[in-house]
Amino acid sequence: MDIFNKKILITGGLGFIGSNLARRLVELQNEVTIIDSLIPEYGGNLRNLHDIQGQVDINISDVRDPHAIHQLIQGKDYLFNLAGQTSHMDSMNDPITDLDINAKAQLSILEACRKYNPDVRIVFASTRQIYGKPSYLPVDEKHPLHPVDVNGINKIAGEQYHILYQEVYGIATSVLRLTNTYGPRMRIKDARQTFLGIWIRNLHEGKPIQVFGDGTQRRDYNFVDDVVGALLIAATSKEAVGKAFNLGSPDPLTLEQTATILCDQNPSSVYNLVPFPKDRKAIDVGDFICDYSAFRDQFDWEPKVNFEEGIQRSLEYFKDEIEHYI
Amino acid sequence: MDIFNKKILITGGLGFIGSNLARRLVELQNEVTIIDSLIPEYGGNLRNLHDIQGQVDINISDVRDPHAIHQLIQGKDYLFNLAGQTSHMDSMNDPITDLDINAKAQLSILEACRKYNPDVRIVFASTRQIYGKPSYLPVDEKHPLHPVDVNGINKIAGEQYHILYQEVYGIATSVLRLTNTYGPRMRIKDARQTFLGIWIRNLHEGKPIQVFGDGTQRRDYNFVDDVVGALLIAATSKEAVGKAFNLGSPDPLTLEQTATILCDQNPSSVYNLVPFPKDRKAIDVGDFICDYSAFRDQFDWEPKVNFEEGIQRSLEYFKDEIEHYI
Repeated sequence: MDIFNKKILITGGLGFIGSNLARRLVELQNEVTIIDSLIPEYGGNLRNLHDIQGQVDINISDVRDPHAIHQLIQGKDYLFNLAGQTSHMDSMNDPITDLDINAKAQLSILEACRKYNPDVRIVFASTRQIYGKPSYLPVDEKHPLHPVDVNGINKIAGEQYHILYQEVYGIATSVLRLTNTYGPRMRIKDARQTFLGIWIRNLHEGKPIQVFGDGTQRRDYNFVDDVVGALLIAATSKEAVGKAFNLGSPDPLTLEQTATILCDQNPSSVYNLVPFPKDRKAIDVGDFICDYSAFRDQFDWEPKVNFEEGIQRSLEYFKDEIEHYI
Repeated sequence: MDIFNKKILITGGLGFIGSNLARRLVELQNEVTIIDSLIPEYGGNLRNLHDIQGQVDINISDVRDPHAIHQLIQGKDYLFNLAGQTSHMDSMNDPITDLDINAKAQLSILEACRKYNPDVRIVFASTRQIYGKPSYLPVDEKHPLHPVDVNGINKIAGEQYHILYQEVYGIATSVLRLTNTYGPRMRIKDARQTFLGIWIRNLHEGKPIQVFGDGTQRRDYNFVDDVVGALLIAATSKEAVGKAFNLGSPDPLTLEQTATILCDQNPSSVYNLVPFPKDRKAIDVGDFICDYSAFRDQFDWEPKVNFEEGIQRSLEYFKDEIEHYI
């Protein structure tokens, strides 16, 4: 199941999940090439790989640039396609950029694969955002897709292109729909990747955590190492080809429980319940819990790190590294 | 229910459905402005409005050009958003262009409405292509969306943006998912709009009609006047705001029955059953019948023109006009 001695391309490889995946793949003695634009609003950060910089091939370029990908896709065994615009708010304020990255670039990446490397094995990182406000919980893969923001719509297109290119051209693609992923190397400057980012930053800076609403909304979380494990499983499993699976965790928490766990790590910290900002409320999805039983049952994947432990490990990481992330 | 003395913008207004709609709206004494790119591969044709050219304001521009729409949307009461790339095959051969027209331009049109005319009433023409191969028949609006080509994926995005802009910004949008529409002024140069186009051309040119496969595949058809009626209903019904409805007809036909009806209009004509070309087979959806009962029951809309009569009227139109359409 592990990947060994292979040539691997990771889009968004300087980002949060991408860099954790890259580190794991380097440990497993693979030849890792990274594409990352390092656009300041996104997750890319050279610090994420600074200690193994000589062991990966870092290519600073944008997935919207079809020429770079034409070159870099050639000869690769695997493509982990993780580059994306993740901010829901940014997708409303600048919807065309979200489309260019999350839809158009995906199509041009797949066209490059079709033309220059149709045998590459692809895993695409999608998001639970495509479902929108749940009509039932937990949300399984058959749940209707009714996104509440432009980001959700463009991510649907992105993953559908991947499935289509498998069905029509036989390119081996798989899609994982991620929920709130957190851990070392996440973006904590702001809430662009997940609200946990800004919460962790506030905790470190001694500021109160702002919980929008009454705190009763439920969310599920995955520690990044568990997501990296799932990406490797998807990439190496024939049964995952042409399919989209949810990730998730067995222990969803309310926002208030989540904030409590964070504050427990840092005795002086507090959280406040504050009213939803109007623009965020308009695209909020309410309770959200993913049903990940299809992926769990088929591939025997189960999150190993619970939220308390994961948060502890994340805070531990940022304690010494905080200056590189804010 | 009718629209009278209003300012109306039609994208794709020199095309097949757009020009028939424009003619009806001019009859109803509205001020009609048209945006059409007249790209040769698409449906736009100056002939479609040549006899009422002085009564409409024709603006030759592309919906991918955000500047034109910024200007032209201002002050309009209605936007019929019909411009699109319709060819399934072209969407596979040039997927990025399909994305630019069917997704990106739609988003930029909606952004223009949001900024410059949020009170405009919008109807967007979508397609049954978004459903892909049916998992049951007839296909209602709850059927899963599993498109078999890039065109279907981009049209999903296009209609989802319309629904989203209603939900988040309160812009009054409605979506109609069209099935095979035919009638006077359709594109008959080739099969880019529907296979009926090339069949009608072949009939006129005394060539055999080529039926792909064994002829047993079922399809449903709407005569263009019925579709124009549905567009006007959607535009003037509060109950249609924020919703997507199928159109369809009560008398689906097999491809062989369809070909027989065409040949019956022209005694010397014949059809041949020929094997599916491989690239078309890969994106074919098999039997397809739309369940249009939601729209019918809510708005009392029912197709008035059956296929025999519609084909007769279409062939009659093209008899004198053929030189302008091939």
